[in-house]
Amino acid sequence: MDEKIKVSIVGGSGYTGIELLRILSLHPNVDIHHITSRNDAGRHVYEVYPSLRGVLNHRFTSPDEIDLKESNLVFFATPNGVAMEYAKDLLNNGIKVIDLAADFRIKNIKEWEKWYEMPHKCPDILPKAVYGLPEVNREKIKNAQLIANPGCYPTAIQLALIPLLKEGLIDPLSIIADAKSGISGAGKKNKADFLMSEASENFKAYSLQGHRHQPEIEENLSLNSSLGKAKLLFVPHLLPIVRGIHATIYVNCIKDFDASVIFNKFYEKEPFVDVMEANSCPEIKSVRSSNMCRISFFKVPDTKQLVILSVIDNLMKGAAGQAVQNMNIMMGWEETLGIHLIPLVP
Amino acid sequence: MDEKIKVSIVGGSGYTGIELLRILSLHPNVDIHHITSRNDAGRHVYEVYPSLRGVLNHRFTSPDEIDLKESNLVFFATPNGVAMEYAKDLLNNGIKVIDLAADFRIKNIKEWEKWYEMPHKCPDILPKAVYGLPEVNREKIKNAQLIANPGCYPTAIQLALIPLLKEGLIDPLSIIADAKSGISGAGKKNKADFLMSEASENFKAYSLQGHRHQPEIEENLSLNSSLGKAKLLFVPHLLPIVRGIHATIYVNCIKDFDASVIFNKFYEKEPFVDVMEANSCPEIKSVRSSNMCRISFFKVPDTKQLVILSVIDNLMKGAAGQAVQNMNIMMGWEETLGIHLIPLVP
Amino acid sequence: MDEKIKVSIVGGSGYTGIELLRILSLHPNVDIHHITSRNDAGRHVYEVYPSLRGVLNHRFTSPDEIDLKESNLVFFATPNGVAMEYAKDLLNNGIKVIDLAADFRIKNIKEWEKWYEMPHKCPDILPKAVYGLPEVNREKIKNAQLIANPGCYPTAIQLALIPLLKEGLIDPLSIIADAKSGISGAGKKNKADFLMSEASENFKAYSLQGHRHQPEIEENLSLNSSLGKAKLLFVPHLLPIVRGIHATIYVNCIKDFDASVIFNKFYEKEPFVDVMEANSCPEIKSVRSSNMCRISFFKVPDTKQLVILSVIDNLMKGAAGQAVQNMNIMMGWEETLGIHLIPLVP
Amino acid sequence: MDEKIKVSIVGGSGYTGIELLRILSLHPNVDIHHITSRNDAGRHVYEVYPSLRGVLNHRFTSPDEIDLKESNLVFFATPNGVAMEYAKDLLNNGIKVIDLAADFRIKNIKEWEKWYEMPHKCPDILPKAVYGLPEVNREKIKNAQLIANPGCYPTAIQLALIPLLKEGLIDPLSIIADAKSGISGAGKKNKADFLMSEASENFKAYSLQGHRHQPEIEENLSLNSSLGKAKLLFVPHLLPIVRGIHATIYVNCIKDFDASVIFNKFYEKEPFVDVMEANSCPEIKSVRSSNMCRISFFKVPDTKQLVILSVIDNLMKGAAGQAVQNMNIMMGWEETLGIHLIPLVP
Repeated sequence: MDEKIKVSIVGGSGYTGIELLRILSLHPNVDIHHITSRNDAGRHVYEVYPSLRGVLNHRFTSPDEIDLKESNLVFFATPNGVAMEYAKDLLNNGIKVIDLAADFRIKNIKEWEKWYEMPHKCPDILPKAVYGLPEVNREKIKNAQLIANPGCYPTAIQLALIPLLKEGLIDPLSIIADAKSGISGAGKKNKADFLMSEASENFKAYSLQGHRHQPEIEENLSLNSSLGKAKLLFVPHLLPIVRGIHATIYVNCIKDFDASVIFNKFYEKEPFVDVMEANSCPEIKSVRSSNMCRISFFKVPDTKQLVILSVIDNLMKGAAGQAVQNMNIMMGWEETLGIHLIPLVP
Repeated sequence: MDEKIKVSIVGGSGYTGIELLRILSLHPNVDIHHITSRNDAGRHVYEVYPSLRGVLNHRFTSPDEIDLKESNLVFFATPNGVAMEYAKDLLNNGIKVIDLAADFRIKNIKEWEKWYEMPHKCPDILPKAVYGLPEVNREKIKNAQLIANPGCYPTAIQLALIPLLKEGLIDPLSIIADAKSGISGAGKKNKADFLMSEASENFKAYSLQGHRHQPEIEENLSLNSSLGKAKLLFVPHLLPIVRGIHATIYVNCIKDFDASVIFNKFYEKEPFVDVMEANSCPEIKSVRSSNMCRISFFKVPDTKQLVILSVIDNLMKGAAGQAVQNMNIMMGWEETLGIHLIPLVP
Repeated sequence: MDEKIKVSIVGGSGYTGIELLRILSLHPNVDIHHITSRNDAGRHVYEVYPSLRGVLNHRFTSPDEIDLKESNLVFFATPNGVAMEYAKDLLNNGIKVIDLAADFRIKNIKEWEKWYEMPHKCPDILPKAVYGLPEVNREKIKNAQLIANPGCYPTAIQLALIPLLKEGLIDPLSIIADAKSGISGAGKKNKADFLMSEASENFKAYSLQGHRHQPEIEENLSLNSSLGKAKLLFVPHLLPIVRGIHATIYVNCIKDFDASVIFNKFYEKEPFVDVMEANSCPEIKSVRSSNMCRISFFKVPDTKQLVILSVIDNLMKGAAGQAVQNMNIMMGWEETLGIHLIPLVP
Repeated sequence: MDEKIKVSIVGGSGYTGIELLRILSLHPNVDIHHITSRNDAGRHVYEVYPSLRGVLNHRFTSPDEIDLKESNLVFFATPNGVAMEYAKDLLNNGIKVIDLAADFRIKNIKEWEKWYEMPHKCPDILPKAVYGLPEVNREKIKNAQLIANPGCYPTAIQLALIPLLKEGLIDPLSIIADAKSGISGAGKKNKADFLMSEASENFKAYSLQGHRHQPEIEENLSLNSSLGKAKLLFVPHLLPIVRGIHATIYVNCIKDFDASVIFNKFYEKEPFVDVMEANSCPEIKSVRSSNMCRISFFKVPDTKQLVILSVIDNLMKGAAGQAVQNMNIMMGWEETLGIHLIPLVP
């Protein structure tokens, strides 16, 4: 067995934090070191999350009281803007960093600062950050010290598009992504919109005039497009479920091709992407609590239109699961270690 | 047609407020005058509740800017402790007051102050307050100027017990009420417990060591018990639904009797209590969005135990619907006016 | 007051049936005559739907035992293929007919027979059928004897598109409708897909290769398009809620125009279409249990793309509510009679 | 590592079947051999449950085509009455059998036949069956060849009561269990009651006049009561969630005792029972997808009443998880093997 490493989680009391704990508690190569939370500092983790009674005896600490540099790897499951405060110092000390927030997801700093409405604290280390989408950037991840873990929508959407864009098969300028996310994507925020009385038995679009995931998606699609810059009409919607993202993507083909062949070839050896039969409909429940992405597609007869359907669990392949997948790759471990979980059905 | 009266709603932006608006907007004898909300003052009601677009053009006002004494009747859909600030002045000016919160529900001031953790502001007018459970206190309500509208749990539980207690048929000291409430009962509170991510696919008891509705229930059951003081073991639970209360009540019979006969006689002419067949199971959805309470019961063979089941919509018969029922009685109108609504199924 | 008419409901035990009963029980100009259901014949309606206890004392009858010609108007809330068995005889006897199923929705019989996989029983009366979308066909409905009540998806989608198509403002050949429906749209079918264990906490597309509402929408859009035949890429999805449809529609503009002006002008006097501000997001809960359709739109900057959002309650404006609206128009009554209901929130 | 055994699952397409597959697919000591389903024979398991795509390549077989005696252990996840057809032959051939249905749960055959309304097919082997509640019968399970896996309600309720009954601390004749179950407890049955349109936003009691779990509970409580026969007033309710049972149990104490001491002592070394602090409220979500039972209690001041609260996941500790726990014990393996799963939150 590989020797265990010490990992810490900054911002452990939110939903991506608790999901990391669910995975890492059983990960064979990891010892959980610090779990920070300013709000809950001093409390046992299991007081906030009784599901972890008997599993974890850690207390939340304040990030100020502890030394993250004693860990081998640090996950930031924090609001945007926190990881960039710590990253430089950690990297300088040889600590690996995986940021589940957005601080290092966009290379274009001006774009980043426009969307995130704050100055970037460490533009100098941004070039070192590897965008942690293993199916696309696995080789770079292997040698990375700093990972920008992709957003949830971006993961679902990019996995559905990159195989086609790389081959120059679709028009990169007329992509439409009608995306739907479960409510845990908003985090554990005490906002009226996310109360059960408001969100259940409801459905709506939101952020019509601009969602932060759009520049992230466009930048990374463009990097993987053989026909240049990609443009996205992105409409997110709020689903009355806790976990899951479903992206329905509309593209215009510029060549004749068999999507099954393209997708199956691209994802042939991927442990966490399941290419389904053409015309089938992947469902969110079929990936819930797992790190799997399932993709299908439908060629509209007598047109150039192709519809691609993609589902993930936003807290897993869209956040914590993918972060652990990235850790496994960075550490040279079996990529599925600790995340070979079977979806919870029913 | 009767002449219309002017009614105002203090605290119109919470869930009992919006429910009052849903009813009163179509009530034939009512003109809605002021709708106050400190938080939303200045905004159109329909901005906060788009369901009211095209229905109401009012803006929320601050209670400080308007004169409630220009109304004929004022509903308080406020947190506990607000109505008692205004009631005396309103009553002195001949305005009728219906408080949907708890300020006037308990006659025993010490008990009230213990549970609500504040001094009572107008103990002198407390004796004038009529506990607004029409099926029990209709005659008093007719002449009341100040109504303490019952709590949601108390309504469901008292309607299930009073017919038996009045006749001295059950032991008043060994009553158990296992009660379950939908999440709107907590109001529009931005608290993590009520987030959809927390509350859905979940169920738990709460307030084991004491819930404010317990002294209210016990006081009023005792007043209606022919065998003296009633005592209640009350365990509330949080249901993962928006609307509805289900009370499962366990009592010990001290005489032989046919519960069907007792209940049917007591509620014979009641428009809002439906006595179902023995051994049937009333369901919450069968009263949703209506002012109806449905009651059934099950005599446990070979024992003295009787189980009584009672369901209401907590925002209707448990709050706004009952408040309007009380208004109708106070005004001498047809009791069902504006609240003869059919449950929403499915 | 107008004199009451006798109406019967064939197929009263499904979800559009019960919804008709919820409305008609309180409709001032209607006496409910027969309510048929082969499966539940002989049972009281309230045994199947306890929500109607105390409201309706009718028993379900078999359509064979009763004479529908004794009614003035008959609603068919039946599976496809039933209304066409009865319609001719009823029309010949001067009875008005409103079919909530699909028998008369498509004028092109070949198309109809292809999609519904049965021979049409009365092609001769099909020309008499008026497609009951009041906002478009009000004048024809006034004089109609036979109404084809539109499907739920078609209502939400057509109301979002017809104002633009009529004016020739958008390309009729590149419309995409990404539509999401609550589960009651499937009716009260005992199919595993619609079990709560399967459908809750889930989301998926379905009928990718063809949904029966598509030819209905295309035929009627084409009739209202000033630029000829309309074509639709229609992807329906199953929402984990009971009631509601949300259509997200993507179109390409062929002229410069202000969608607010167009929509507001078209729907200016409509009681059941609410045109919201540009860039706002209508939510399903804001129309639940009401006959309202709310529409908004978003012009994508620097493109010719327009996104239109449309929500309805599938059982109301998408079925029973619209059927009653049609009845009111046919009878010359106030169009909102009995359906001026306020959405249930929360 | 221990050598792997071959296990088969009879009735693999229901919810306890799929849950067994979720666990057993990752169980290190098990090879899944046959998975039978008469309805789905011939289909790949992953066609029925896409969540198992890439996990299992088995096809469902008909039990008639295969020889169960080639397995080492057979789970019956079938309707009641099936296991007793096969059990004798399997036992005679040295195959271990775990029945997740009710065929061997009740020793009193007359009682069994009354509640299950069929003749018992193998009363002669009934005495060999061990009631598979490990916390109570671990020693017997070790040597058992035939396990009657307890029902879901019985597991939650017995674990909450047996520590007290064994010590003679409570009155065994006045126990009330107000129990609530998620809808997956009903299995994958195409019955209208379990449709999402019916069950969501709803709550009701059911089987008031008798539920099959009652005699099972009473028989086993009585066996573990130091004060003789136990009697239970058992009222089950249907929760609008997929997974989980919450039992609220009311008992009368006949001695003074500290429930914390009693429960902690009894469950001190148990891996799957978590005794929480007095007066805390275990929630269903805190055990979801895990094999854990969490128990708390509340001593009602100034009375002899004790309230005990108990939660489990009905498909795990209430079915498949407990079945695997029993297998582990029978095989002499680490008891937590393959079922050391962390609850899914949120």
